[in-house]
Amino acid sequence: MPSSRAFHPSNPRFAEKVRESFVRQGLMRHLGAVLEAVRPGECEIAVAWREELGQQHGFFHAGVTGAIADSACGYAALSLMQAGKAVLTVEYKLNLLAPAVGERLVARGRVVRAGRTLTVCSAEVFAVRNAVETLCATSLSTIMAVNEKEGLQG
Amino acid sequence: MPSSRAFHPSNPRFAEKVRESFVRQGLMRHLGAVLEAVRPGECEIAVAWREELGQQHGFFHAGVTGAIADSACGYAALSLMQAGKAVLTVEYKLNLLAPAVGERLVARGRVVRAGRTLTVCSAEVFAVRNAVETLCATSLSTIMAVNEKEGLQG
Amino acid sequence: MPSSRAFHPSNPRFAEKVRESFVRQGLMRHLGAVLEAVRPGECEIAVAWREELGQQHGFFHAGVTGAIADSACGYAALSLMQAGKAVLTVEYKLNLLAPAVGERLVARGRVVRAGRTLTVCSAEVFAVRNAVETLCATSLSTIMAVNEKEGLQG
Amino acid sequence: MPSSRAFHPSNPRFAEKVRESFVRQGLMRHLGAVLEAVRPGECEIAVAWREELGQQHGFFHAGVTGAIADSACGYAALSLMQAGKAVLTVEYKLNLLAPAVGERLVARGRVVRAGRTLTVCSAEVFAVRNAVETLCATSLSTIMAVNEKEGLQG
Repeated sequence: MPSSRAFHPSNPRFAEKVRESFVRQGLMRHLGAVLEAVRPGECEIAVAWREELGQQHGFFHAGVTGAIADSACGYAALSLMQAGKAVLTVEYKLNLLAPAVGERLVARGRVVRAGRTLTVCSAEVFAVRNAVETLCATSLSTIMAVNEKEGLQG
Repeated sequence: MPSSRAFHPSNPRFAEKVRESFVRQGLMRHLGAVLEAVRPGECEIAVAWREELGQQHGFFHAGVTGAIADSACGYAALSLMQAGKAVLTVEYKLNLLAPAVGERLVARGRVVRAGRTLTVCSAEVFAVRNAVETLCATSLSTIMAVNEKEGLQG
Repeated sequence: MPSSRAFHPSNPRFAEKVRESFVRQGLMRHLGAVLEAVRPGECEIAVAWREELGQQHGFFHAGVTGAIADSACGYAALSLMQAGKAVLTVEYKLNLLAPAVGERLVARGRVVRAGRTLTVCSAEVFAVRNAVETLCATSLSTIMAVNEKEGLQG
Repeated sequence: MPSSRAFHPSNPRFAEKVRESFVRQGLMRHLGAVLEAVRPGECEIAVAWREELGQQHGFFHAGVTGAIADSACGYAALSLMQAGKAVLTVEYKLNLLAPAVGERLVARGRVVRAGRTLTVCSAEVFAVRNAVETLCATSLSTIMAVNEKEGLQG
């Protein structure tokens, strides 16, 4: 996917908006996830290893991988939206490429195409082991813009 | 998808095997998820609402929906495998159909086709509100059989 | 997925509308595809085997499977929409379950959830060999309603 | 997705092998598709516009987009496999980003991760209009290596 595109945020307060939304996500807090970076059209979320995030073989559970990939994509999309808009995930697909083993898991979400109603994002998730990053998952997702004040029906 | 197929488990201890694996999934415990049922080719996992599982609008986070759908599909697949086999999720896709609002979230995973190496599963996730179930997500996933003793590389 | 739901078409001329659109799909004609049935929320499209539809092993190419599944889902969605609406596929995912070998390939698309803007559909594709149907693919897709007269931007 | 990786083909005749397989794909011929390039882990397939490839609004049908994306991914995967191996698509997901309008459609497939059994690929599909390329679709797919001589069951 192209990485050279420059996105221009229409809301100058986009980073603040993403941070305010992130702290309201109970699940991110419960997983110990940290919002590491927000840039126009990009968002990075990381989580440190604990047994509470594992599956039966001691890897990060695919649900954790999916959760931080989904939030990273949602916020990458939100970063480009006008004030007054909120995001809902329409769908996501996640390919698990390698066991997610390591002291940390980092999801980097990025807008592939921003539309008026729908934004398509992609995330790469890396397992960090002894400070070496291994690509362990990649996702493709569709995010919908909704009005913050209206009902949040998809 | 066809629901009338009868699957015959090759491992008579399939239910025990699924339960033993489930309790080793740190994430399921951390989310408060409960293994509600295991039948040949089917598995049901539920989780009760708490703020720790929410996103910014007070719905269940798509990551929770994805996590229980993924585990339900993985265990539906495992229920049909021979003793000595373990499962790895290759990929999953999740469509979010309605806000996941309610006191409970239930994922019902089911094998669509069981192959020697790959098993394809589908899950439906229901939000339960005042005891009424609403279909809020549907997933399609690919699960790989690996030898329990070997390395768990995909 | 639930199959017992009854859908009520808001456009009484829904079947005619689907048929008129189908004949304008050059690809369906080029593949020799036939619109076999349209019901509220459902559509069935079939294609007979010819070498021109194959891949390198003599099965139907996954592209054919995807094409008729996509059209069947799009028209299942369109069948429930108001007059004046058109459909665009936002995304689809296809799992190939068994080699698509036979004298015929049939895709049955069906609405899983109809929303104001987005409709989620699922298709099952069967290979018919000596009159016996084998499920060879299953898909999950997202369809967008657009105004027929406006630009068709997603 | 990372684009800087260098892949080393284990079959020195990989390009010849891909070309021999491509000409046996009846569908590619029927669509008028051309194999434009094969490199280790990469493959490019293009098709010129004709009405026979359209949908009801005069765009390339999503089935065409999916077909050339699928073949481009399959051959990108095949280019890295040992002699004696063949490929089967396990599943693919396609996001349609913009109307596929133009004189030509080009799919560029690329290996994201090559495994012993499963290879994950991604494709970008561009519509070329007056020689200007517009990204109109992106896909993520899973390809399985099978022995050429054995049955081709997934």
